[in-house]
Amino acid sequence: MNMPSYPTVRLTPKGDARAIRHGFPWVYANELVTDRRTRGLTAGALAVLEDANRVPLGLVTVNPASKIICRMIDRDTEAVIDTAWFAAKLTRALIHRERIYDAPFYRLVHAEADGLPGVVIDRFGDTAVIQPNAAWADALIEPLCDALVQVTGVTTVVMNASGRARSLEGLDDRMGILRGDAPTAAIPVPMNGATYMADLMGGQKTGLFFDQRPNHAFAASLSRGARVLDMFSHVGGFGLAALAGGAASVLAVDGSEPALALADQGAAAMGVSDKFTTRKGDAFDTLAALAEEGAQFDLVVCDPPAFAPNKSSLEAGLRAYERIARLAATLVADGGYLMVCSCSHAADLTRFRNASARGIGRAGRRSQVIQTGFAGPDHPLLPHLAESGYLKAVTFRL
Amino acid sequence: MNMPSYPTVRLTPKGDARAIRHGFPWVYANELVTDRRTRGLTAGALAVLEDANRVPLGLVTVNPASKIICRMIDRDTEAVIDTAWFAAKLTRALIHRERIYDAPFYRLVHAEADGLPGVVIDRFGDTAVIQPNAAWADALIEPLCDALVQVTGVTTVVMNASGRARSLEGLDDRMGILRGDAPTAAIPVPMNGATYMADLMGGQKTGLFFDQRPNHAFAASLSRGARVLDMFSHVGGFGLAALAGGAASVLAVDGSEPALALADQGAAAMGVSDKFTTRKGDAFDTLAALAEEGAQFDLVVCDPPAFAPNKSSLEAGLRAYERIARLAATLVADGGYLMVCSCSHAADLTRFRNASARGIGRAGRRSQVIQTGFAGPDHPLLPHLAESGYLKAVTFRL
Repeated sequence: MNMPSYPTVRLTPKGDARAIRHGFPWVYANELVTDRRTRGLTAGALAVLEDANRVPLGLVTVNPASKIICRMIDRDTEAVIDTAWFAAKLTRALIHRERIYDAPFYRLVHAEADGLPGVVIDRFGDTAVIQPNAAWADALIEPLCDALVQVTGVTTVVMNASGRARSLEGLDDRMGILRGDAPTAAIPVPMNGATYMADLMGGQKTGLFFDQRPNHAFAASLSRGARVLDMFSHVGGFGLAALAGGAASVLAVDGSEPALALADQGAAAMGVSDKFTTRKGDAFDTLAALAEEGAQFDLVVCDPPAFAPNKSSLEAGLRAYERIARLAATLVADGGYLMVCSCSHAADLTRFRNASARGIGRAGRRSQVIQTGFAGPDHPLLPHLAESGYLKAVTFRL
Repeated sequence: MNMPSYPTVRLTPKGDARAIRHGFPWVYANELVTDRRTRGLTAGALAVLEDANRVPLGLVTVNPASKIICRMIDRDTEAVIDTAWFAAKLTRALIHRERIYDAPFYRLVHAEADGLPGVVIDRFGDTAVIQPNAAWADALIEPLCDALVQVTGVTTVVMNASGRARSLEGLDDRMGILRGDAPTAAIPVPMNGATYMADLMGGQKTGLFFDQRPNHAFAASLSRGARVLDMFSHVGGFGLAALAGGAASVLAVDGSEPALALADQGAAAMGVSDKFTTRKGDAFDTLAALAEEGAQFDLVVCDPPAFAPNKSSLEAGLRAYERIARLAATLVADGGYLMVCSCSHAADLTRFRNASARGIGRAGRRSQVIQTGFAGPDHPLLPHLAESGYLKAVTFRL
């Protein structure tokens, strides 16, 4: 076999070679010597990264259009990135998920921490959905796809290439079928004893989020005989888990009609439609309306979209979290529970918890914190990026 | 009924009345006007707390000997602290635990967050263990005990009044039976499918810690067919949970012979003695010895005592956590797991995780963070004291 011949890119003297040696996976654009040759590299090109003294650090992928200009691919500068290489990464990722979960429904690859920078793969039984959120994965999608079929045995591979992460990489949106036939119906997904319907081709974000699994389970553990309100329910994540946990009734509120229709399908599949009601509407308006109606619940869950996705939106985002908690707290029966979630990178756990506690206080209620949860173990993090564990779920008893 | 007549204590102008109005439960000694009358109050006396403008804030207990000179007992300044008052607090606490757990084995009262400042009550079926770690609870132990029997139906109440929290309050150590007969044998405690033997009268800290329950459960979920090492095993917390989760073998290491004997009893009660081995020894020495022997495990759990109980021990404590992680990492098979725990107040999650990741790196291993856990929901926290959530468990995959 021929040795691969990669171009070379080099850190500036200010580039943090030490962090990279210790496992940090990224080089920012201002840390790299960007001469004409480097600027001329194709987005997603492979290259050998050297420190300022020309000592090799590893094999990286380069995207001159991205703020994260290099992502570490392999510490071996002579690694060949082919189907076998992808298969090794996927096998390692698969062993972990198969150890934890009884059924093949999980996030199989969570980007950097699973050794495939920018690549997210969710598995729904025989179907996998790839999100190639970095240029190199676009370029190498074929060997990645071959390895995925080979390692997992999935028969259908969907590419869902859209969203903010791609635009930061200067990539366009694409959606397509890479292997097999497009799913013609929503796929039933078993999780925590509930059944969710995931429409992988819907394009209205009517797929499924695996990250809340442990928090769904905790909500379910509080739900025996309970009246439950699932705000921002999407396809019924918390509400259907609560019914699996023995809830007496669930009201699911969301702004998306297709998502609520899938939630209804899930409830029907579980045989609990008589206990499950949906209501389409704006969350703030609906919370206020429910308070007007004098509604009371034993468990209220609020899992809103990111109110503070970046630093500039932090203050406004924290005010929104406070407002949600204030409105929701008025609906919680004495001794009942309020679970609030945040998927905002910018709002750390302490800030988010304090904003929520402030909102509860403004509603004239006192509270205990009984649980704090994060994304499940199929969403690993590199220790160097662990602060970026964006998903937080805090449960208060009122 | 006569209105109670309580003495009055008053915040200095620098005292944080606003925080107390928002639910902060403590007054520090330097925030209170400590005239001769206040200094003359009996430790544990009840008093009405006023702000600097003589506006009442609530009913507090005063301990002139403690840095935490007042603890909020009731926002109602005319509350009568009798058996009925305790029964109301205990009922509220009990409803929460009964909702979450199938069997009556849990922390029933977790001090401030359950409305009983400084009071900890653990329940082991028909037996309860009270830790009255504040002077007021010593003084009112009889109505508390009456209420406990009335609300829960326990037949035996043990008082375990010892430890650092009491010495900070200027209280001496006491151990005794308040109701019923002293247990003559260890009590079997079911948790996560395992059986633990808790010797409540042993005096060698051979009782049981309920706080690790969710982390035990997570370790169990990683354990199917696994070789497991349980360092600082105490009575077998993680090791027996791992066996309940299908571990192939468990080695439990601890410095305490009585604790290991109880762990062995637990394994016998579960019928898994053939898979369970104990080894008495110093943790650092044993980790080094196991490395010498070439031992390898699929899961290693390290749950050491607090290496950084206070700020002055923080740096040395973090070095000890790093060292533990480094030694333990060498024993983890490729693709295996390392769970490290800290019950140090001074080492926050980020510092502790970084120290552990550094240790793993020094062992020449790379890692992902797959899970972060805290104490279970029977250990609630006031939002204002939530930073004090001392127990952290971080699981790495290597």
